[in-house]
Amino acid sequence: MKSLFFMFVGVAHLLSLNSGKAIYKNDISQRTFQEIKNEIASYEDVAKAIINLAVYGKYQNRSYERLGFLVDTVGPRLSGSKNLEKAIQIMYQNLQQDGLENVHLEPVKVPHWEREEESAVMLLPRIHKMAILGLGSSIGTPPGGITAEVLVVTSFDELQRRASEARGKIIVYNQPYTSYGITVQYRHQGAVEAAKVGAVASLIRSVASFSIYSPHTGIQEYQDGVPKIPTACITVEDAEMMSRMASRGSKIVIHLEMGAKTYPDTDSFNTVAEITGSKYPEQVVLISGHLDSWDVGQGALDDGGGAVISWEALSLVKDLGVLKRKLCLVKGSLSTLSLMLYLK
Amino acid sequence: MKSLFFMFVGVAHLLSLNSGKAIYKNDISQRTFQEIKNEIASYEDVAKAIINLAVYGKYQNRSYERLGFLVDTVGPRLSGSKNLEKAIQIMYQNLQQDGLENVHLEPVKVPHWEREEESAVMLLPRIHKMAILGLGSSIGTPPGGITAEVLVVTSFDELQRRASEARGKIIVYNQPYTSYGITVQYRHQGAVEAAKVGAVASLIRSVASFSIYSPHTGIQEYQDGVPKIPTACITVEDAEMMSRMASRGSKIVIHLEMGAKTYPDTDSFNTVAEITGSKYPEQVVLISGHLDSWDVGQGALDDGGGAVISWEALSLVKDLGVLKRKLCLVKGSLSTLSLMLYLK
Repeated sequence: MKSLFFMFVGVAHLLSLNSGKAIYKNDISQRTFQEIKNEIASYEDVAKAIINLAVYGKYQNRSYERLGFLVDTVGPRLSGSKNLEKAIQIMYQNLQQDGLENVHLEPVKVPHWEREEESAVMLLPRIHKMAILGLGSSIGTPPGGITAEVLVVTSFDELQRRASEARGKIIVYNQPYTSYGITVQYRHQGAVEAAKVGAVASLIRSVASFSIYSPHTGIQEYQDGVPKIPTACITVEDAEMMSRMASRGSKIVIHLEMGAKTYPDTDSFNTVAEITGSKYPEQVVLISGHLDSWDVGQGALDDGGGAVISWEALSLVKDLGVLKRKLCLVKGSLSTLSLMLYLK
Repeated sequence: MKSLFFMFVGVAHLLSLNSGKAIYKNDISQRTFQEIKNEIASYEDVAKAIINLAVYGKYQNRSYERLGFLVDTVGPRLSGSKNLEKAIQIMYQNLQQDGLENVHLEPVKVPHWEREEESAVMLLPRIHKMAILGLGSSIGTPPGGITAEVLVVTSFDELQRRASEARGKIIVYNQPYTSYGITVQYRHQGAVEAAKVGAVASLIRSVASFSIYSPHTGIQEYQDGVPKIPTACITVEDAEMMSRMASRGSKIVIHLEMGAKTYPDTDSFNTVAEITGSKYPEQVVLISGHLDSWDVGQGALDDGGGAVISWEALSLVKDLGVLKRKLCLVKGSLSTLSLMLYLK
């Protein structure tokens, strides 16, 4: 396939192990960077026409209204859920109504994890019901939950130094927030590192610079050969409080219950739509994104906004009739891996 | 009583109708403003000594550590709760340990309201469990809850214009946030205005410029002669969503359950401590604040910080031995009204 790829929307499935990354692949015509730059610059008028149509013209606010409708009608759309399938059907019907070409659904398997009921109560040094959010792919606790003493650490290094204290404990990570890219390691690998030193569960301070007693969720990763232990995020406030309690020498005990379950991969669909360009119909510009969202939000971000923006991009370009290459939208329950398979 | 009053901490009980206001009362010696300014300016060295002691010296971080200990040990302290009584005992013992004079407890009656279980589920146009927080002094719903259609308005004016649509409905206020002082009227009076036009409950967009799907609580006020209806805060996100749904013509139905109960006023205490000054022992500088906090937070703000700062003020001044007038701390389950009674 002769293709020029631009992917401006991350395509990481929320429950996959991959993060969205832009893919750049040289046109096989071996054009120089300067030639490509010149071609892009020649589209200035087209870019202005698109902006005018979307921001000031006939379709002013349309992408926002479409996002609002999708979010309000469906709600959160975790992969494997009925909500995601409903969103795919809405997207599919809307792409057809916009008169795009070759609109179709392609079967794909997606992960299916559900958090079910979850709760955490501090029993010592005082009774305190804690706000938690289980992490995606976490196992649940055994029925009746886990009651264990807490070991608070602020880093993986501290966990290593205090490894002899960790057996049978719930590890609480109170890592300071530096940047998302650095701090998110505690969410990704916190459970594995805790399990390696014999802990029975791990609770991670939400990866956030700010909190209103609001725990965050996100994906975490188990490792082959390391026992799987339940893991959840706690609020910045509770992580800081337990650090203070530990520094005063208080014994902290938590009762944790999580009903999280991983089901077999579920049937889903990628949604595809195209417009064929006038000058280079054999060349493809690919726009992609994922429709799924975490189960505890509105589904407006990651990747609701991106989903609608990329859908809107096709519809705007079609309405303007300015297309030279083929524009292809791939949208759905899509991991980077399945996008790769799609491209083959 | 010959007194000069400085009150830098609001003394509104969270469940009272009054907001904290500074009280200025002229010294009976009829000194000019310039004379008072000059006297204050003469304490520059004392002010620096206090700052040095608290910020760089022996008591560096002490107020923060005391606040952390109070908050972590007690948790939230709604008036009428056992937690508040525990906080009063801690404050009382600490004031004694700091060697302050005339440390004693004075009996006072305080309001006693408990939120109990509360929930709201949108049934139409789709099932959606909503985050809510009942407002202080709200009644609960009848057993089994209330199921009713929603009328969304953005202002009291709109409610008046659409009064004929309101009977039997749940009023949702999606008032835009302008400033706390202006917007908080919807929380204070939302239930009364809704009840006047025949609504069965009211849900108020949280009085906040920002939300992470986080509802706020706070006090609301019923009015004699107007039926009492249950009232709670919802998140900015849900208020905006219901506005969008209503603008699309969707019928919105909510099932609301609130177990809130108001109990008879409960016995509590104001905590008092003093230091007698060296030069004008008959004149009193009063420092005050309230110890209670809302039931759903940490109890660090409104008025945890203020409580510890004013306690710390006495202890720092005592340690420095620089006092000329009598310094009096009144702290506890204290409304503006009861402070007035105390001053008599």
